[in-house]
Amino acid sequence: VTDGEAPVTRVEMFSDGVLAIAITLLVLELPFDKVGDGDLAHALGDHWARFAAYGLSFLGIGILWLHHHAIFTAVGHADRTLVLLNLIVLFCAAFLPYPTSLVGDYLSAGGSNARVSMLLYSGTWTLVTGAAAAMCRHVLRSRLLSSDVDPAGARRLYRNLVGATAAYVVFTLIALASPAATIACYGVAALFFLFTSDFRALGKTTVD
Amino acid sequence: VTDGEAPVTRVEMFSDGVLAIAITLLVLELPFDKVGDGDLAHALGDHWARFAAYGLSFLGIGILWLHHHAIFTAVGHADRTLVLLNLIVLFCAAFLPYPTSLVGDYLSAGGSNARVSMLLYSGTWTLVTGAAAAMCRHVLRSRLLSSDVDPAGARRLYRNLVGATAAYVVFTLIALASPAATIACYGVAALFFLFTSDFRALGKTTVD
Amino acid sequence: VTDGEAPVTRVEMFSDGVLAIAITLLVLELPFDKVGDGDLAHALGDHWARFAAYGLSFLGIGILWLHHHAIFTAVGHADRTLVLLNLIVLFCAAFLPYPTSLVGDYLSAGGSNARVSMLLYSGTWTLVTGAAAAMCRHVLRSRLLSSDVDPAGARRLYRNLVGATAAYVVFTLIALASPAATIACYGVAALFFLFTSDFRALGKTTVD
Amino acid sequence: VTDGEAPVTRVEMFSDGVLAIAITLLVLELPFDKVGDGDLAHALGDHWARFAAYGLSFLGIGILWLHHHAIFTAVGHADRTLVLLNLIVLFCAAFLPYPTSLVGDYLSAGGSNARVSMLLYSGTWTLVTGAAAAMCRHVLRSRLLSSDVDPAGARRLYRNLVGATAAYVVFTLIALASPAATIACYGVAALFFLFTSDFRALGKTTVD
Repeated sequence: VTDGEAPVTRVEMFSDGVLAIAITLLVLELPFDKVGDGDLAHALGDHWARFAAYGLSFLGIGILWLHHHAIFTAVGHADRTLVLLNLIVLFCAAFLPYPTSLVGDYLSAGGSNARVSMLLYSGTWTLVTGAAAAMCRHVLRSRLLSSDVDPAGARRLYRNLVGATAAYVVFTLIALASPAATIACYGVAALFFLFTSDFRALGKTTVD
Repeated sequence: VTDGEAPVTRVEMFSDGVLAIAITLLVLELPFDKVGDGDLAHALGDHWARFAAYGLSFLGIGILWLHHHAIFTAVGHADRTLVLLNLIVLFCAAFLPYPTSLVGDYLSAGGSNARVSMLLYSGTWTLVTGAAAAMCRHVLRSRLLSSDVDPAGARRLYRNLVGATAAYVVFTLIALASPAATIACYGVAALFFLFTSDFRALGKTTVD
Repeated sequence: VTDGEAPVTRVEMFSDGVLAIAITLLVLELPFDKVGDGDLAHALGDHWARFAAYGLSFLGIGILWLHHHAIFTAVGHADRTLVLLNLIVLFCAAFLPYPTSLVGDYLSAGGSNARVSMLLYSGTWTLVTGAAAAMCRHVLRSRLLSSDVDPAGARRLYRNLVGATAAYVVFTLIALASPAATIACYGVAALFFLFTSDFRALGKTTVD
Repeated sequence: VTDGEAPVTRVEMFSDGVLAIAITLLVLELPFDKVGDGDLAHALGDHWARFAAYGLSFLGIGILWLHHHAIFTAVGHADRTLVLLNLIVLFCAAFLPYPTSLVGDYLSAGGSNARVSMLLYSGTWTLVTGAAAAMCRHVLRSRLLSSDVDPAGARRLYRNLVGATAAYVVFTLIALASPAATIACYGVAALFFLFTSDFRALGKTTVD
C-alpha cells in the first residue's frame, strides 16, 4: 500500500454514481420544449439527429461502464495515478451530455457547425477510451492487480481498449470529411462492442 | 461462469442508480416556468395532464424497480444476454421522462398529437416490460439461478411480467382510439400491480 | 418472512438514491437565467424567496433522510405496507422541487398565488411526515423490528414524527393567513429538529 | 456510542450520492441553448468562462470527494456534530452549480457583476473547506476515530484542509481586486492538490 492510496470499493461506488447520473441526464438534451404547436410526428422526425445522438451516447456510456467495471474487479488497491486517470474518465463521461446536445443541434444542418460539434463529440470519446486504456495498462504494470486475477484476461481487455481508442481516432478524422457518416460509424462500433467485448469480471466478485 | 459474465452486485447498483435518477428526474417535466402571472390555482388545473403523467410514470418506475429487484435476488451470475436485456430495461426507464413530457404537453389538447405522444408512451412501457419478462425467462432457462431460489416463485414472477406486457400492448391499441382513456387504464394498472404483485425476493437476501 | 417482502438493504439503497438526487436537484430551481444584465447583487436580493425556499427544502430533506435512516436500521424485513408507505415518502421527496420552485416564484409577490404555492408546499411536507410516522408505527406494530432493536427508542422516534406531522398541519393553517410567516415557521422547525432530534440508529449497524 | 449517533456507512453512501450528483449536474450550466445559428466554434470561444468554471468546479468537487473519503475511513462512529458539519459540506457542494453558473455568465464581462459572482463562488469554497477541516478536527478531538487509524496521518490531513481553507480566504480577497486572476488561482490550486494531497485512506478499508 503506497503513496496516495484510496480504497477501491468507494472509488467504484462514486464512479458508478457519476456514470449512472451521466447516462440518465442525457435525456434532458432531447427536444422537450422545441416541438411547438405543429404536427408532433413530423416535428419528432425533424429532430432525428437528437434521438440518434442520444441513443449512441447511452450505448457508449453503458459499454464504458461495463469495461470500467471489468477493470476494477482486477484492482487490488488504488494509487494516485489510478485515481487521476479515473477522474479523467469520469470528467469525460459527465461532460458527454454537452457534445451530444451539440451534435443533436447541428448535425442535420450540415456545414462547419456540424463538423465542429462532431469533432468535439469524437474528441471526448477518444479521450475517455484512451484514459480507460491507460488506466488498464497502469493496473497491469504497477502490480495493483488483485492476487487472484487472470493476467491474460487483463491483457486482452487492455488490447480491446487500445483498439477502441484507435477506432475513435479514425472516427475523428472521418468527422472532418463527413459528420453524418461518423454517426453511422458510432452505431456500428456500439453494436460491435456490445456483441463481441469480453465484459467478464477479471477478479473475484462477491457473488459468484 | 461463462462468456461475458459480470458480477451481479455491481450490475444491481448501477441499475438502482439509473432507476432512482430516472424516477427523480421526472419532476423536471412539471410546468416550472409555464405558469406565468395569472391565477396559479387555475394554471395548475390547466396542466392536469402533466401531473397525471408524472404520477403514473413515478408509480410505473417504482413498480418496475420492485420487479427488477425481485428478479435479481434470484440471479447467481450474469451473462451477456442478461446484461444486454438489462441495458434495454435501463434505456427505456431513462428515456421515459421524454414521452411523459410529451403526454403532459399534448394529451389535453387531443387530436393526432395526443395520439402520437400516447403511442410513444405506451410503446416505451411495452418495450420495458417485455424486456423485463425476457430477462426473467432467460434467468429461468439458462440456469443463471442461485442455488437457493424457489423456481415456482420465479415462474410466477415471469407470468406476471408476461401479463403486464400483454396489458401494455392492449393499452397501445386503446391509445389509437382514445389517448385520454389510456391514461385511466395506466392508473388502474398501477393500483392493480401495487396491491397484487408479488414483490417477494426470490433468492436469499443479506438481511433476513 | 411474509407476503410481499423485499430485502431491506436494497430498499434503503434505492431510497438513499432518490433522497440524494432530490436534495441535489433542488439547486435547479435557483434563478439561473433570470438575473439578466442589470446589477447582480440587487437581482439576487430580489430573489430572496427562492434562496429561502431552497435552504429550507435542503434542510428538510436532510432531516427526513436522517429519520428515514434511523427507522430502517430498526427494520428486520419489509412487507408490502412498508414498501407502499416508503413509496409515498419517496414520491413526496422527489416532488418537492416543484412546490419549492412555486414558493420561490410567488411568495414575495404575495396575494392568492403566494397562498396557493405555500399550501402546496405545506401539504407536501405534511404528507411526507405523516407517511414516515405511519411507516414507523407499522414497523413497531407488525413485528418487522430487528431482534436487537430498543423498542423505547423506536417509540420515541414515532412520537417525534407524529409531533412533526402535527406541526406541519398547523403550518398549513398558518399558510392560509400569512404565507410569509409560514416560511419563518419552517426555518424555526428545521433548526429545532437539527438540534433536538434523536438521529441515533435504532438497530445494529455494520460499523459500530 | 453517544448522543445522536448515525452509522457511518449509510452517511458515506448518502454523501457519495450527493457529491456524485452535484459533480455531474455541473454540465447543465454549459451553454446548451445559447449558441444560436452563428458560427459554433466562435460561439464556444465566447463562452470560455463557462468552460473554465465548469472544469474548476469539477476538479474541486472531485478533490473534495477524495478528502471526504479519506476522513470517513478514519471515523468509527458519527455523532450529531459530525452529521451537522457533513450537512454543511453537502449543502455547499450541492449549491456549487449555482455560483459556477454565475461565474460563467458574468466573469468575461468584468465589472461589479464579475466581482459579486466570484465572491459567491469563493465564499462557497471557503465554507465547504472550512467545514471539512472542522469535521476532521472534531473526529480527531472527540475520539470518534476507529481504533486502527494512524493519528499522524489524520493530523496531516487536518493541516492540509486548514491550509486549503486559508488559501480560499486569500482567493476571496483577490476576487475583490481581480475576478479573472482568481480563476487562475483556482486552476493552480486544483493542480497543486491533485498532485500533492495525501488521499491515502486513514483507516482500514474493505479491500486492501
